[in-house]
Amino acid sequence: MTDTTKKGTTRRGFLAGAAAGGALAATAARAGGPDPLITEVQPWAQSLGDGVDATPYGMPIHFESHVVRRNVEWLTADTISSVNFTPIHELDGTITPQGCAFERHHAGAIELAKPDWRLMIHGLVERPLVFTYDDLIRFPRENHTYFLECAANGGMEWAGAQLNGCQFTHGMIHNMEYTGIPLRTLLAEAGVKPEGKWVLMEGADASSMSRSIPIGKALDDVLVAFKANGEALRKEHGYPVRLVVPGWEGNMWVKWLRRVEVGDQPWEHREETSKYTDTMADGRSRRWTWEMDAKSIITSPSPQAPITHGPGPTVISGLAWSGRGSIREVHVSLDGGKNWQQARLSGASHDKALHRFYFEFDWNGSELLLQSRAVDSTGYVQPTKEQLRSFRGVNSVYHNNGIHTWWVKTNGEAENVEIS
Amino acid sequence: MTDTTKKGTTRRGFLAGAAAGGALAATAARAGGPDPLITEVQPWAQSLGDGVDATPYGMPIHFESHVVRRNVEWLTADTISSVNFTPIHELDGTITPQGCAFERHHAGAIELAKPDWRLMIHGLVERPLVFTYDDLIRFPRENHTYFLECAANGGMEWAGAQLNGCQFTHGMIHNMEYTGIPLRTLLAEAGVKPEGKWVLMEGADASSMSRSIPIGKALDDVLVAFKANGEALRKEHGYPVRLVVPGWEGNMWVKWLRRVEVGDQPWEHREETSKYTDTMADGRSRRWTWEMDAKSIITSPSPQAPITHGPGPTVISGLAWSGRGSIREVHVSLDGGKNWQQARLSGASHDKALHRFYFEFDWNGSELLLQSRAVDSTGYVQPTKEQLRSFRGVNSVYHNNGIHTWWVKTNGEAENVEIS
Repeated sequence: MTDTTKKGTTRRGFLAGAAAGGALAATAARAGGPDPLITEVQPWAQSLGDGVDATPYGMPIHFESHVVRRNVEWLTADTISSVNFTPIHELDGTITPQGCAFERHHAGAIELAKPDWRLMIHGLVERPLVFTYDDLIRFPRENHTYFLECAANGGMEWAGAQLNGCQFTHGMIHNMEYTGIPLRTLLAEAGVKPEGKWVLMEGADASSMSRSIPIGKALDDVLVAFKANGEALRKEHGYPVRLVVPGWEGNMWVKWLRRVEVGDQPWEHREETSKYTDTMADGRSRRWTWEMDAKSIITSPSPQAPITHGPGPTVISGLAWSGRGSIREVHVSLDGGKNWQQARLSGASHDKALHRFYFEFDWNGSELLLQSRAVDSTGYVQPTKEQLRSFRGVNSVYHNNGIHTWWVKTNGEAENVEIS
Repeated sequence: MTDTTKKGTTRRGFLAGAAAGGALAATAARAGGPDPLITEVQPWAQSLGDGVDATPYGMPIHFESHVVRRNVEWLTADTISSVNFTPIHELDGTITPQGCAFERHHAGAIELAKPDWRLMIHGLVERPLVFTYDDLIRFPRENHTYFLECAANGGMEWAGAQLNGCQFTHGMIHNMEYTGIPLRTLLAEAGVKPEGKWVLMEGADASSMSRSIPIGKALDDVLVAFKANGEALRKEHGYPVRLVVPGWEGNMWVKWLRRVEVGDQPWEHREETSKYTDTMADGRSRRWTWEMDAKSIITSPSPQAPITHGPGPTVISGLAWSGRGSIREVHVSLDGGKNWQQARLSGASHDKALHRFYFEFDWNGSELLLQSRAVDSTGYVQPTKEQLRSFRGVNSVYHNNGIHTWWVKTNGEAENVEIS
């Protein structure tokens, strides 16, 4: 955590402002007489609440029923091929609960029981092997927290501001603690032949989702995972077993993993040629753009999370991440990038995982052009959209990690805008 | 992570065994002809699965419906005052999902909406204050991962082995990433008078659950928390706001927090006199035993999670934690404490948070007396139950952090036993 005195508003100044906030609440209550929520015994203090057997497995309280994954209907032809976005404007901290972590499938979320799961490793290996689920969990496990981001996250924003909410502009991301077996352990079992340079990963659903991964990555930090945030993967996240490819685009994290083939060259399958390649201004496409570049987004205030309290002490909250390592710094601008101030990071800082940042300031009620800018542990600085476009044009929907702008109006409402 | 070659079974030895495991699966399939799960196209690969709109907020897949909180009916008179234990034998990693994180209430889980929530700070302060929820979230937030353990976790085991499963012997614990405001920030708003040495924390439910906390702890790492694992607290965990008292016994983590009073001495309320004090052999009681001592438990194998695969490569998995800091080492014994070997820690290591350990070995099918022993960052070593009893007798149900034993039989089943 950085020193909070480095910000534009000093700690003392902030607290002085906040005291006024506290006083305001008391004042409001006094205006209509004593606050009955303080002076009167409330119903919930006069009767028993739910017993512990009420919910063997609990769900969020009904007051939070708006904190759910949401689709954008016009984005795709049907809900099978669509995306349900994480409500990042309502979340805080760094962990994403499985229940509202974004989902995207290529042939729908299938139901595959553990006894029916098989993983075959074949191709350029000494010993082709088939693993059952019970075989898998006899190997040494590891736990790591990683973000998964779809390559198309923010893709609709390449050409300009489109979707009015960070759930939709940046919600194709989640961050979980995975438990799994390093893929290198399983490959060592099979014995990769010297000519084995690539690995094909394939899922068990009807899309036969498959991607080629270079052997170097496959032997590095890739996990064959069976738990997320402590419990079994959810159906929509690939139960019972999915691939975890840290820092690389989400479509490579093959769900319902069924087959690993070792080869001497990439397969150039459908999802790495017609899709998930980046078409440039001249019509040619970049390929093998696996790594997710450093990126950040202010989640509050944002179009779905306006400032409702009027001028005074205000908390800006956001997320930052990098496929290359951890986040070293985040900067926030209130004026569309003219001036930048250091944000405060708080919480766990893991390589290739989400980081939470905050910036507290005393809002004077005037318009803001909010931006955030991440710097990762390699020194890479998140670029502007203009900088991205100057090199990559506007033909792609993938790998937009440009700095994003929210226009906060005097009434506290926020809107997705683009400034030049 | 420690070097895996430090274990009784070498890495090479383990992998050789595991290869046999993989081969076994293939053999089994061959015995009845080709494995149709490999050779035939399966139903889930021939039709579309669920669309992304199926579950805006998802639940675990039905195959995992046994992974739930469970009560022990005879433990208390009714389910209001009872405990629903975390299914730690089925979880892995370090994070506990809110949905199955243990719950215990003193007057049931109440429903309290954010607009109805108030927090009053009064007593020996310069400025008595009332905070609304909207006031609260305008202060600078922090994110920290902490375990919460009930002081009575393992309490039924003081006199000897009783409950056959780690869910029941050690499941009054969970570990979450909390987002909240440091209590010291709110106390600074109110201005603690020099004579203010203690703080009373009180909940809004009918039990008026209240505990005295010394001012030093209140100004240290205590959080007024409103999110856990990224999302709103669940109803049963104190929605919308609870106290987080890192490393200290769970009953002090007051739920539905409504009142903070600053005083010059402790209040000696019901829950810190008749309850949550430790009766010694001579009938006198220890009080203010807030801090949770270092502890560990093997979660698998255990009575609810037997070894089902027969002799060969076997993974022992468990949890370790300390209210004083992080976990430095965990040792595992296969023979009831005669010989100890170093376990491998994997995953996040935060102060006052759960740590995950593993120990891989080649089981020869003979009986085991499994034990684990934690060493925390202060150098404290988890004691045996005999050591605990020699100082504290058997009259208390609180603060049993003794080394626990599972007897694994030749058929892989495990039983809760005590050895002298």
